[in-house]
Amino acid sequence: MYAVIMAGGVGTRLWPRSRRNMPKQFLDIVTENTMLQETFLRIEPLVPPEKVFVITNGTCAPLVWEQIPWLPRDNVIVEPAGRNTAPCIGLAALYLRQLDPEEVMVVLPADHLIREAALFREILRVVATVAQDGYLVTMGIQPDSPHTGYGYIQRGDFLRQIGQHSVYKVARFTEKPDKATARRFLDSGQYYWNSGMFGWKVSAILEAIGVHLPALHAQLMTIEAALGSPREREVMGEVWQEVESISVDYGVMERADNVAVIPVDVGWSDVGSWATVAELLPKDAEDNVVVGEHIGFDTTGSLLYSSGRLVATIGLRDMVVVDTGDVVLVCPRARAQEVKDLVGELKRRRKDEYL
Amino acid sequence: MYAVIMAGGVGTRLWPRSRRNMPKQFLDIVTENTMLQETFLRIEPLVPPEKVFVITNGTCAPLVWEQIPWLPRDNVIVEPAGRNTAPCIGLAALYLRQLDPEEVMVVLPADHLIREAALFREILRVVATVAQDGYLVTMGIQPDSPHTGYGYIQRGDFLRQIGQHSVYKVARFTEKPDKATARRFLDSGQYYWNSGMFGWKVSAILEAIGVHLPALHAQLMTIEAALGSPREREVMGEVWQEVESISVDYGVMERADNVAVIPVDVGWSDVGSWATVAELLPKDAEDNVVVGEHIGFDTTGSLLYSSGRLVATIGLRDMVVVDTGDVVLVCPRARAQEVKDLVGELKRRRKDEYL
Repeated sequence: MYAVIMAGGVGTRLWPRSRRNMPKQFLDIVTENTMLQETFLRIEPLVPPEKVFVITNGTCAPLVWEQIPWLPRDNVIVEPAGRNTAPCIGLAALYLRQLDPEEVMVVLPADHLIREAALFREILRVVATVAQDGYLVTMGIQPDSPHTGYGYIQRGDFLRQIGQHSVYKVARFTEKPDKATARRFLDSGQYYWNSGMFGWKVSAILEAIGVHLPALHAQLMTIEAALGSPREREVMGEVWQEVESISVDYGVMERADNVAVIPVDVGWSDVGSWATVAELLPKDAEDNVVVGEHIGFDTTGSLLYSSGRLVATIGLRDMVVVDTGDVVLVCPRARAQEVKDLVGELKRRRKDEYL
Repeated sequence: MYAVIMAGGVGTRLWPRSRRNMPKQFLDIVTENTMLQETFLRIEPLVPPEKVFVITNGTCAPLVWEQIPWLPRDNVIVEPAGRNTAPCIGLAALYLRQLDPEEVMVVLPADHLIREAALFREILRVVATVAQDGYLVTMGIQPDSPHTGYGYIQRGDFLRQIGQHSVYKVARFTEKPDKATARRFLDSGQYYWNSGMFGWKVSAILEAIGVHLPALHAQLMTIEAALGSPREREVMGEVWQEVESISVDYGVMERADNVAVIPVDVGWSDVGSWATVAELLPKDAEDNVVVGEHIGFDTTGSLLYSSGRLVATIGLRDMVVVDTGDVVLVCPRARAQEVKDLVGELKRRRKDEYL
């Protein structure tokens, strides 16, 4: 199988460590290696480097080469601009179709944490098996809380059993729910978090794009005609200006009927905010997570994350303090999601040096 | 008259900006010039540089020369070590006695803010007049709140009127009161905050030290015998090891009976903590005081003080964030006094680089 690692995200909710020129997936926030390296190393026993492709933007491509020097240089696919996941996956599929259109490709975000790597690889084999039957396969995370920050997948009919793993048809995808709905989903036992991890045959996903996103398919065909020619970059750049931003979930998966879900319970986290970081890292006796040097009185339940400076605190409850070279962020853990809005505001004010 | 500016304090409550090697009085936290410079410039129309003496420690003496280059170099008196105000003032008096023992010396901390400089100079003239009569004169700050962080002075009998200014005998000095007592003091109209600003004849304070602190007086006499000799620094160093730390308030003023108080209302502040800084500096529309660059959502009543970095905040109420080159401090405004305890803890842990 091929693995396509999507490494073009910006990770604004982990600002100020995650930056435009050094996004989340290239950082070692909760792991020893960077998240991209972890993603790569996790699948390496299953997928050799020559079958791994990383798709990212021009700014970040050098980071990929630097962090995974043993990846063949041509296996980094450079998107002219971010257009969400459907165009990104379609572009990767074009390259893979030249190699083997009937092979399965698994699609993995570069910025997710998965604690149980061996189990995850076992599941990827199951994904490949189901994908070989023509299904568009999605991995559904077994939820452990009524999280309102994820989309949910409702399972439908049972399809088959492969070893320990049950495979279901998908009944329906839903957008991020409110708290009451999320609670209902959790209690029903029929819903999974949409992890954004997929598997399908190269031919199957291009076919599905052709059916459900015909404009994108036509644009991809224009690019394919230029692949390998001297005009490849130029054509791709021109076409990409016209490409609509759309997620593969919304654009393809919700509309297709040959969609399967495999429930997975692999210690997954999207490391979605500083509050998540605070949950993932080990706590000290005062229930704080301390990275770097800290001194404090009467400080509990807080993330004190420094890239060099001493963080000194008095009387903090459930707060986040993140200190980087040029920014210090202070906010309650419960509002860590709003960090992305701060970044939006900085963008609006054209404070490029902080983005 | 002579002016003695005491510049040997450490200002730990304004840590992390105030540091052992760069204490509060050498910083420009609430004013354009440093507090030492402001103290000097405030009295300059009244006291020429050759009659101004600055007493400080060996570490900080170069800062005095740097910040007040037009001060005669010999007018910086270097204390071998901090021993609170009584020894400090006694030492300064030794030097002044050599010049003119019957002249008045006013004693001014280098780290106080006084908004009304002209009125203050007028009061210093009143202080000098009363001091010429042999009184130990203290300036009592007209209180505007039941502050529990200051000592209080209760006025006694009316002594005399000089222009707009009433002069009273002192009935009694009191230590920092609890809230109820402070409220009672304020309501009575008979109490003033002890500002630590004094005036007396050189001979009068040395005489009072002789009566009330005879051990210190004897130690000072040992030093005086060596002044101007090659052994001056050596003798002073040896004697100073034995000198007891004691404040002039406790050691002399509370015990003497020729003590007068002049109530003053000159826009005084000791800039005693970051909470005070937040009160002194102008507020923005969200009731925040911002120094440096700040971006925030739903942040009010807070001090956001940066020495270069962007401070980014969400959901802060009445907080203090102070960012310096190597430290970031976060605490509620109401607990800003405890910063000195943090510094004490750093000292205990021998984290000298942060002191």
